[in-house]
Amino acid sequence: MAHLETVVGEIAAEMSARAERGTVASYIPKLAGVPIDQFGIAVTTPDGAVILAGDATVPFSIQSISKVFTLTLALGQIGDELWKRVGKEPSGNPFNSIVQLEHEHGIPRNPFINAGAIAVADAMLSGHQPREALGSILRFIRFVSGDEGVSMDEDVARSEKETGFLNTALANYMRAFGVLQHPVDHVLGVYFHQCAIAMSCEQLALAGRYLAFSGRLSPGGPSVVSEERARRIAALMLTCGHYDGSGDFAFRVGLPGKSGVGGGILAIAPGKASIAVWSPGLDRHGNSVLGSLALEHLAKAMRWSVFAG
Amino acid sequence: MAHLETVVGEIAAEMSARAERGTVASYIPKLAGVPIDQFGIAVTTPDGAVILAGDATVPFSIQSISKVFTLTLALGQIGDELWKRVGKEPSGNPFNSIVQLEHEHGIPRNPFINAGAIAVADAMLSGHQPREALGSILRFIRFVSGDEGVSMDEDVARSEKETGFLNTALANYMRAFGVLQHPVDHVLGVYFHQCAIAMSCEQLALAGRYLAFSGRLSPGGPSVVSEERARRIAALMLTCGHYDGSGDFAFRVGLPGKSGVGGGILAIAPGKASIAVWSPGLDRHGNSVLGSLALEHLAKAMRWSVFAG
Amino acid sequence: MAHLETVVGEIAAEMSARAERGTVASYIPKLAGVPIDQFGIAVTTPDGAVILAGDATVPFSIQSISKVFTLTLALGQIGDELWKRVGKEPSGNPFNSIVQLEHEHGIPRNPFINAGAIAVADAMLSGHQPREALGSILRFIRFVSGDEGVSMDEDVARSEKETGFLNTALANYMRAFGVLQHPVDHVLGVYFHQCAIAMSCEQLALAGRYLAFSGRLSPGGPSVVSEERARRIAALMLTCGHYDGSGDFAFRVGLPGKSGVGGGILAIAPGKASIAVWSPGLDRHGNSVLGSLALEHLAKAMRWSVFAG
Amino acid sequence: MAHLETVVGEIAAEMSARAERGTVASYIPKLAGVPIDQFGIAVTTPDGAVILAGDATVPFSIQSISKVFTLTLALGQIGDELWKRVGKEPSGNPFNSIVQLEHEHGIPRNPFINAGAIAVADAMLSGHQPREALGSILRFIRFVSGDEGVSMDEDVARSEKETGFLNTALANYMRAFGVLQHPVDHVLGVYFHQCAIAMSCEQLALAGRYLAFSGRLSPGGPSVVSEERARRIAALMLTCGHYDGSGDFAFRVGLPGKSGVGGGILAIAPGKASIAVWSPGLDRHGNSVLGSLALEHLAKAMRWSVFAG
Repeated sequence: MAHLETVVGEIAAEMSARAERGTVASYIPKLAGVPIDQFGIAVTTPDGAVILAGDATVPFSIQSISKVFTLTLALGQIGDELWKRVGKEPSGNPFNSIVQLEHEHGIPRNPFINAGAIAVADAMLSGHQPREALGSILRFIRFVSGDEGVSMDEDVARSEKETGFLNTALANYMRAFGVLQHPVDHVLGVYFHQCAIAMSCEQLALAGRYLAFSGRLSPGGPSVVSEERARRIAALMLTCGHYDGSGDFAFRVGLPGKSGVGGGILAIAPGKASIAVWSPGLDRHGNSVLGSLALEHLAKAMRWSVFAG
Repeated sequence: MAHLETVVGEIAAEMSARAERGTVASYIPKLAGVPIDQFGIAVTTPDGAVILAGDATVPFSIQSISKVFTLTLALGQIGDELWKRVGKEPSGNPFNSIVQLEHEHGIPRNPFINAGAIAVADAMLSGHQPREALGSILRFIRFVSGDEGVSMDEDVARSEKETGFLNTALANYMRAFGVLQHPVDHVLGVYFHQCAIAMSCEQLALAGRYLAFSGRLSPGGPSVVSEERARRIAALMLTCGHYDGSGDFAFRVGLPGKSGVGGGILAIAPGKASIAVWSPGLDRHGNSVLGSLALEHLAKAMRWSVFAG
Repeated sequence: MAHLETVVGEIAAEMSARAERGTVASYIPKLAGVPIDQFGIAVTTPDGAVILAGDATVPFSIQSISKVFTLTLALGQIGDELWKRVGKEPSGNPFNSIVQLEHEHGIPRNPFINAGAIAVADAMLSGHQPREALGSILRFIRFVSGDEGVSMDEDVARSEKETGFLNTALANYMRAFGVLQHPVDHVLGVYFHQCAIAMSCEQLALAGRYLAFSGRLSPGGPSVVSEERARRIAALMLTCGHYDGSGDFAFRVGLPGKSGVGGGILAIAPGKASIAVWSPGLDRHGNSVLGSLALEHLAKAMRWSVFAG
Repeated sequence: MAHLETVVGEIAAEMSARAERGTVASYIPKLAGVPIDQFGIAVTTPDGAVILAGDATVPFSIQSISKVFTLTLALGQIGDELWKRVGKEPSGNPFNSIVQLEHEHGIPRNPFINAGAIAVADAMLSGHQPREALGSILRFIRFVSGDEGVSMDEDVARSEKETGFLNTALANYMRAFGVLQHPVDHVLGVYFHQCAIAMSCEQLALAGRYLAFSGRLSPGGPSVVSEERARRIAALMLTCGHYDGSGDFAFRVGLPGKSGVGGGILAIAPGKASIAVWSPGLDRHGNSVLGSLALEHLAKAMRWSVFAG
């Protein structure tokens, strides 16, 4: 893995030197205050190696990346029933768009747009209180990352709630169509808190292993989900993981990935690596500018694109 | 490859026995008259083997599969300039939708929806007459399939034109925004004819080799496009290749693919195989019912999903 | 006025005999339980006459008709500033549509669609508590109807709130765009209560006099609004008063009017009469079937259409 | 009528002094070249008086005002059958919008948006060749204006056709839905020519008399259409006559009117006057800036608003 270590180090060095970094999310104070000059990367491989560079151990708000984990949990709870309440198609619209939702009678296009993740949060409340659902999310992430230190940032959760008018509109809208089945404030309580989970690149790369290694924490290791489910979640990440920039990310990088407005991206090279990058500056679609670029370089250098022959 | 041959044979046998086959496209007589009980499959591998089963040598109308080849040619002609006139994002709307086009000022979302392919046809006319553009399309497909027998069905082209009000609307609409730069009837002449190309599964699987084998007709063989371009076209096939069923195809099958309303699908297992399937019955999104199912079985049996770890 | 009395009586008789009555609103129990076989009509003329027929003294839920009165009050409070937060154009979409709202950055098309009336309720809260705003609405309606018996139905208000997910979505959506300036639950508290006001045709016809008689309760009588404002509110009623059936109502009836899902319609024959009709059965646009028909007959018989030469 | 003459003269004088005049339509050379500093007004009253001021005898391109006359003719030909192919509701979208058309399966919202007028042109071709339809349009306008000098400007018609990609898109789109029943180029031939009719304010005001005087050229004079039809066309003018500025025009002016991008407006004060104004500068909705303002002043001064009590 000497080659990989070199590549990762070079990418981190190059990213540190970049001037063009996009814009930090500003809708809540805790995100707006994150210094833009940070960049971290962590790569874990099937042999258990974890390669870190830059600010790889600094925790950041994972935001929408949490949608990968709640999707995994909801599928574990209610299985393919979930697909009656949320679709599997790219949205073709900015991530907050409510138009598509009207057109499709309250059924969100996929679990990675906000409306879809809210529907997933609702599914997790079947037979559970919000506190229990949140507990299970946190336990799951701690388990797959092998790190009990993962936590929720209550300040962020509170700010999300105070400014979350659009998400509140989406949730009420889906409730009007009968797509949500629990009280809107319960559902949003779960959603706002899952977005407020803080993790470092190191923790996140470890947490993504089950998606890279056929549903297991390591090849031959403990199983988290079936191989088929891991494949399917990765497929959704590739087609829907970067809001309205998903097609461009697949085109440039060629890896399943999920971004968050905190500036993190979790990317999967099936069979080869679980990768987390973080840099808080975002492009116009809400995806990390340097994070996307670092992944493009990494995938190219390692020939990790899923489309490489 | 004994295993692959067995798998392909079993799939062909199973598909022949299926009752649920969807509906044959009916908007033009030549398509409406195709017997629904046909199924063909062809798989070519890096070693040059071509495995055929069912109706693999029966020619059918490739329709939208032609968009893969014209995209390749247009990129060869004008390079990344093309992306100023057509996007790379999944459309999130039925394939004929004009709404998205209005929203995005006449720039189609991607080259695989009708509007996008019409914009690609326009790009191919830069410095060329329609007849020349059509000649170059046919020459290219004959070259990559290694088969001089590939031809255009003039009856189909004429019917496409006579019934093509929606495509004529799309083309005029883009012309109004200045996205098309040539006379609408020239552009549509190219588009209607490219859709009328007839190929068998065998020819189509051979034609797709350059996308599966890093831009070459075989590993180490003659180069058609750069490795990077082959990867990128495959990425677009995965995110946008099946109209509004693209996400579901990626979820179930996990291979880049492009379907046509003639019932054909060209699918790519990077580094492993170029695959063509054909069965004329379509689902509600316009994709071959048995073709999709056959690819799902094949990808599973061979562990060819690009998302497999 | 002997002729008018005869006409009104004949219309009431004819409506009682009609079989086709549409469907009673069913989204809240109190509305769903209203017997469909009722019909009332009240007409007041400049000379102070009040002609009643059918169930003209039975109170019903005025619902969206209240939007006429809150618009009048909000214009009185903040004047033309209101038009920065709400438009004057017909909506061209079903009355709950959120699409238009997205397209126009949270500014509702007009004050008579739900979103618009919610924006008007927000405007009424400038410097006032919800309780005060509600008090002023009730006082205004009692004043213009000359009837202290007009009241709010708390059961209806509660049901509106419990089922009002779509309106809650709209309000949060506008709040996200900064169009609403007060807490969403305050604004909706006002809105849900104004819809729950109960009035009879008699009370409603009297309440509409200021719109028919140049801003006054009677020609030469006490002024409620300026003549110009009365004209302008009537213009909005004509272009926007019947949701997506406004054009058809203007075409058939030719009078400014405002309908509510309780089955009432307030219509204005400028200079000639203020008219209220009520019958709980609705058409697909949410307008009273018999109410519209009765007004069509009345306008024709009396030559009251504003388009009559 | 001394008062009216004074008012008209004052308005013409005031309009001549106005600096803010909007922008002249620029999509075809013949319109782009019209000097912006012109203003004309003509008013005809039941007694046969015709009051002229400013450039009232200068011919201009009536453009969309022609839609009023073709609607009248199509209703005469096929009656209420027309309403199966075109609606009566305001469009709530910019006048070229194709979105609404998709949403409503190719049925235009009303006869005064472009798509609607194209559908009306199609209706006029039932049993007639384009040349005959055009002949009947011209004969009708000459008859109602009492002026054989009204003509079509072939230069304008040709330019309309050469630049009419959006209208060609709309027509093909409706043809795809089966709403148009004749060859698209026939239908557009009629449409582009009707828009190219040239008239002066004087001619136009005279042509509008049948809408102002209960379907007759003068009270008690020859009947053109039934009283009811005149009323109904006027209702459509009020709700739909000014594209997405219709609500605002009703609010400010309070008269049924139809505008064209040539800068003309035909307005109707039922029973009182037929009015034509012209000034080539347009607002963002495509309506004449000075024309609208002049009508606002005139309606106010004469108390002609249909909403005046």
